[in-house]
Amino acid sequence: MSHRIVKNITRPNQVDIEKLGELGVATVHEAMGRTGLLSPYLRPVDPKMRVCGTAVTISSHPGDNLMIHAAIEVCQPGDVLVVTVTSNNTDGMFGELLAVSARAHGVRGLVIDAGVRDTAEITDMNFPVWSKAISAKGTVKATPGSVNVPVVCAGTLINPGDVIIADADGVVCVPKAYVPQAVEKGQARVEKENMTRARLAAGELGLDIYNLRPTLKALGVVYVEESNE
Amino acid sequence: MSHRIVKNITRPNQVDIEKLGELGVATVHEAMGRTGLLSPYLRPVDPKMRVCGTAVTISSHPGDNLMIHAAIEVCQPGDVLVVTVTSNNTDGMFGELLAVSARAHGVRGLVIDAGVRDTAEITDMNFPVWSKAISAKGTVKATPGSVNVPVVCAGTLINPGDVIIADADGVVCVPKAYVPQAVEKGQARVEKENMTRARLAAGELGLDIYNLRPTLKALGVVYVEESNE
Amino acid sequence: MSHRIVKNITRPNQVDIEKLGELGVATVHEAMGRTGLLSPYLRPVDPKMRVCGTAVTISSHPGDNLMIHAAIEVCQPGDVLVVTVTSNNTDGMFGELLAVSARAHGVRGLVIDAGVRDTAEITDMNFPVWSKAISAKGTVKATPGSVNVPVVCAGTLINPGDVIIADADGVVCVPKAYVPQAVEKGQARVEKENMTRARLAAGELGLDIYNLRPTLKALGVVYVEESNE
Amino acid sequence: MSHRIVKNITRPNQVDIEKLGELGVATVHEAMGRTGLLSPYLRPVDPKMRVCGTAVTISSHPGDNLMIHAAIEVCQPGDVLVVTVTSNNTDGMFGELLAVSARAHGVRGLVIDAGVRDTAEITDMNFPVWSKAISAKGTVKATPGSVNVPVVCAGTLINPGDVIIADADGVVCVPKAYVPQAVEKGQARVEKENMTRARLAAGELGLDIYNLRPTLKALGVVYVEESNE
Amino acid sequence: MSHRIVKNITRPNQVDIEKLGELGVATVHEAMGRTGLLSPYLRPVDPKMRVCGTAVTISSHPGDNLMIHAAIEVCQPGDVLVVTVTSNNTDGMFGELLAVSARAHGVRGLVIDAGVRDTAEITDMNFPVWSKAISAKGTVKATPGSVNVPVVCAGTLINPGDVIIADADGVVCVPKAYVPQAVEKGQARVEKENMTRARLAAGELGLDIYNLRPTLKALGVVYVEESNE
Amino acid sequence: MSHRIVKNITRPNQVDIEKLGELGVATVHEAMGRTGLLSPYLRPVDPKMRVCGTAVTISSHPGDNLMIHAAIEVCQPGDVLVVTVTSNNTDGMFGELLAVSARAHGVRGLVIDAGVRDTAEITDMNFPVWSKAISAKGTVKATPGSVNVPVVCAGTLINPGDVIIADADGVVCVPKAYVPQAVEKGQARVEKENMTRARLAAGELGLDIYNLRPTLKALGVVYVEESNE
Repeated sequence: MSHRIVKNITRPNQVDIEKLGELGVATVHEAMGRTGLLSPYLRPVDPKMRVCGTAVTISSHPGDNLMIHAAIEVCQPGDVLVVTVTSNNTDGMFGELLAVSARAHGVRGLVIDAGVRDTAEITDMNFPVWSKAISAKGTVKATPGSVNVPVVCAGTLINPGDVIIADADGVVCVPKAYVPQAVEKGQARVEKENMTRARLAAGELGLDIYNLRPTLKALGVVYVEESNE
Repeated sequence: MSHRIVKNITRPNQVDIEKLGELGVATVHEAMGRTGLLSPYLRPVDPKMRVCGTAVTISSHPGDNLMIHAAIEVCQPGDVLVVTVTSNNTDGMFGELLAVSARAHGVRGLVIDAGVRDTAEITDMNFPVWSKAISAKGTVKATPGSVNVPVVCAGTLINPGDVIIADADGVVCVPKAYVPQAVEKGQARVEKENMTRARLAAGELGLDIYNLRPTLKALGVVYVEESNE
Repeated sequence: MSHRIVKNITRPNQVDIEKLGELGVATVHEAMGRTGLLSPYLRPVDPKMRVCGTAVTISSHPGDNLMIHAAIEVCQPGDVLVVTVTSNNTDGMFGELLAVSARAHGVRGLVIDAGVRDTAEITDMNFPVWSKAISAKGTVKATPGSVNVPVVCAGTLINPGDVIIADADGVVCVPKAYVPQAVEKGQARVEKENMTRARLAAGELGLDIYNLRPTLKALGVVYVEESNE
Repeated sequence: MSHRIVKNITRPNQVDIEKLGELGVATVHEAMGRTGLLSPYLRPVDPKMRVCGTAVTISSHPGDNLMIHAAIEVCQPGDVLVVTVTSNNTDGMFGELLAVSARAHGVRGLVIDAGVRDTAEITDMNFPVWSKAISAKGTVKATPGSVNVPVVCAGTLINPGDVIIADADGVVCVPKAYVPQAVEKGQARVEKENMTRARLAAGELGLDIYNLRPTLKALGVVYVEESNE
Repeated sequence: MSHRIVKNITRPNQVDIEKLGELGVATVHEAMGRTGLLSPYLRPVDPKMRVCGTAVTISSHPGDNLMIHAAIEVCQPGDVLVVTVTSNNTDGMFGELLAVSARAHGVRGLVIDAGVRDTAEITDMNFPVWSKAISAKGTVKATPGSVNVPVVCAGTLINPGDVIIADADGVVCVPKAYVPQAVEKGQARVEKENMTRARLAAGELGLDIYNLRPTLKALGVVYVEESNE
Repeated sequence: MSHRIVKNITRPNQVDIEKLGELGVATVHEAMGRTGLLSPYLRPVDPKMRVCGTAVTISSHPGDNLMIHAAIEVCQPGDVLVVTVTSNNTDGMFGELLAVSARAHGVRGLVIDAGVRDTAEITDMNFPVWSKAISAKGTVKATPGSVNVPVVCAGTLINPGDVIIADADGVVCVPKAYVPQAVEKGQARVEKENMTRARLAAGELGLDIYNLRPTLKALGVVYVEESNE
């Protein structure tokens, strides 16, 4: 279990990744049987940010961004940095300079289970970032970690090369092997939702569309005209 | 204490509700003797959102939105959905489709002591929502609950038919019976504040306007020219 | 240890304060050897807000804003109010009327380890505020406190007359005596960062610019071509 | 909505209260259809503490224990003090002296949605206390509140005269009108649990005792001999 | 990604498991290169509890303990139940009856990223439990989940058959394949610590034993006779 | 603002320190005008622990205990280690070996705004510890910090040589210069409390002993025979 930097990872095909990005987080999460979601404490620096791409994973010591610098070297265009820390921390481990460097190597965005800073500049350059905190607290470059190993980020297992989708609703991870199915199921879901949306907009009730009246009855929920309390 | 859906509730008169909406949360809360406020962890999906309306209350199992679907059927135009869960939860129990359905039935907005999703779409359609969290986590439709029963939402008792006012400062509940007084006291407060604002803008001190100098003296607060520490 | 209001404090020279404001929070914090930062739970009411100025410090009872009124009388143009409470509290101790009053006396902004309200109005009048919470919860004016005494605000010691810099990344305090050095070191840092930014944008790696490869080697981090897990 | 102290309240019969105390929190909560439980952040000062009694309710300003002193005068033997604060607070509003005073008036214990102090002494005198925090932080006696009004304590509505049961598992409130049914259902539950316990101890499975195999099947849960991941 | 119950898992040899149990959580965590630790919010019901055993993993819906019942059937003597929920929850999903049932099947203890109840009875029967909360809140048996699949529990990946060690310091997971090395490194560490303990007890400094003086010097830490502040 | 270790500090006289220890945290905090208390999130490892002594202060990087080792060298018998971290952290920075080393140098206890481990061993050796968390998470010895500089610990300013009192109710800091007054006022308070305790035990009301009836009247609190709600 020594610290290591894995230089080469396999990545899913780019067409599928783009399709997942278009589907968005809530739809992809549902398409995966309601799995893969990172904890909702991760929030975008700006609610308009969206990203999809391949995970390059990083395990860091709290308050130390040495391994983020190491990770950028092994990134390819289309990657998303996924940074975890070995214990709960909110320091600003990533700022404008790292965003400039990441972008120069084709990195599309960042998901970090810690803090970020230079958020005005990061928003201006439209570099998508999801983090646990915003903090100007600076970090050292003194302790070892790993790149492209399996990590747990905000409560979810992420392997290098998994697909990361993030938008205003949060962040979801699609395991590499499950990408084609997620695309297929997600697209089917969108079509179904389009039909449901039209019916709901016309005033039809979810109770009827989803056939929930028998469920309510079976669960013993009773209808009462008025409260007599 | 069986699960039930109460179909008919009494609602305060609409003119008063609109007046309370214009007064805003901070003023109404003060007009009620500093009561009725929901916990500040409830935040609007977008800070520009504002709503006022009549509470249709919902008590749900965590991670289950069956009862929200049931509630929409008993809503009338001008209502606001107030959703509580029986234990602490942040799942995204309400999304775009439910917002479309709610709007089709005249529902003005949502206050939920849990999570919501599809927040970009909800913001685009300008459907006002206050929640504890934003989370793409989907929910089941499997466990019973109640509609239009008294609930505790974010620490405050809300009865069906109470008036809900929500804006950037949070959410306040005005009990049905207290609505006329809240309007009257709130309007008086606004007039008084207008005068105070003019005096403060002219440089007069709160110390003098509120006659606080005797209070400071009585409490033993002393004035010192300079610190000698 | 009686409650007191100190009327006169020494303030650093205004030119240096403006320079620190231009440098921004992250740069100033780094220039000070990564010290002086307030806890990241303090957030601006609007992410576009920025302020710099001299601290007028206030120690209050939770849920009581008597001492804020007292403090405004001893403020001078260019000051920033720094409000602490003697125990954890989120009540809305500061609202539009106090903002109007503060502005009438030249106060530039507010940093408060508690809550604020009237946030729509405060944003409209562009009065910069950093707080722990947004809450419409009103306060009393009944319990004593102090003005212009040393306080601990969001985990950091602040003396009256210290310089407060706040922006989207948070709030930093520069002790009076350290102001000239902070300016000098901060400006040097900006120049250095400008050069680094250009090199990073050109694709050069932080690993090389900061000479981190020997560090990685010394720490035992190994490079692996591919994962064999 | 002025501040008031209600001197006389109706209390349920004492025999039923004792029976509820013997049943314990988890059983009573189940007997009430899984309602009435206060938030689990309330913890006993010592895990061996247990209490049952009638609620005398108190609504206080944070950091102010004036109304607790006022409440003791209207207490009767067998009562339990239920203290709420108008906003989130952890100050030590109750200590040994108040415990001595409360005991002198027959008060059986305290449930407080804030902090307590003198916990070593309170444990030594075996005065049962459930609180949100332990804090030596002292309080003032300066701001008004109410006694024996409906309160929301740790997320649950409590009316004066309701029955409070508390033990190592937390605190539950039984509304006055529901006391006889809660006793009856609770006792039935205990009998049923005794039988279930014996069967489980003998190795029978909950799957069979509660007839859960058809549920698993209906929900689509499949049995797999071994994982092929 | 359907819900499934895996009936057979491979387990490490029992002798090694016992050895890891004797080493304790802190030592095993260090022996694994400071990995494998679950988040410190998991606490034992009683600080004297200790356990070691093989993980049978459970993924449940919040507020639903159906899958715990299903898991007991596939347990073998020496197993430890590891329960996760698909979103943040503190309900009391495990109580005395389940503890009786688990013990009847040889289960040694429970680690649960949610709540437990009947803690007095569980302590009396000396069944070791680590949980996120204590809550009497009851659960339903209505929603599907999985048994013996990989789970993330309190931030750490746990596979069925991994070794769980828990004591007053928390919970650590040793992946199956790493068990022999963890035993070896842990035992070596204990021997080394015994020597270090003797030297420290005799007054020798960690600065000298760990040769930290050069580190301090290299990091620029200076020694000052007295403070001149 | 470079990192430094101050070797010599002035300490208050030992007789006064012992007297403060006997008074206990709640009394000393009140004697100081309700100041000096550390945040209540600091809890003793065992509720029976008590300590008093002189602060040797430590400022550390999160997850790094290098400076604790450095501090022990400058400790004298009667000192208490006060450890802070530069950002929020719960790692187990102090364990049994450090406790053995500290005790060998006469250190009486530890107050740490982070985590500790080996808590069973620390409790067995009766070494008093107050911490924010219990965590087996190990730390590195790689980043610089300072010893015997002013620190903010759990929200309170502590200077080296200040007196630390800690017990089941929490931790209080008495600034060096204020020690004699704190002793005097604390002892006076104990005498007064002894008299009050006797009167309260005899059934006299706090309302009368503290003369609170006029306060209630002045605040507009009214007495009502029965609720008419």
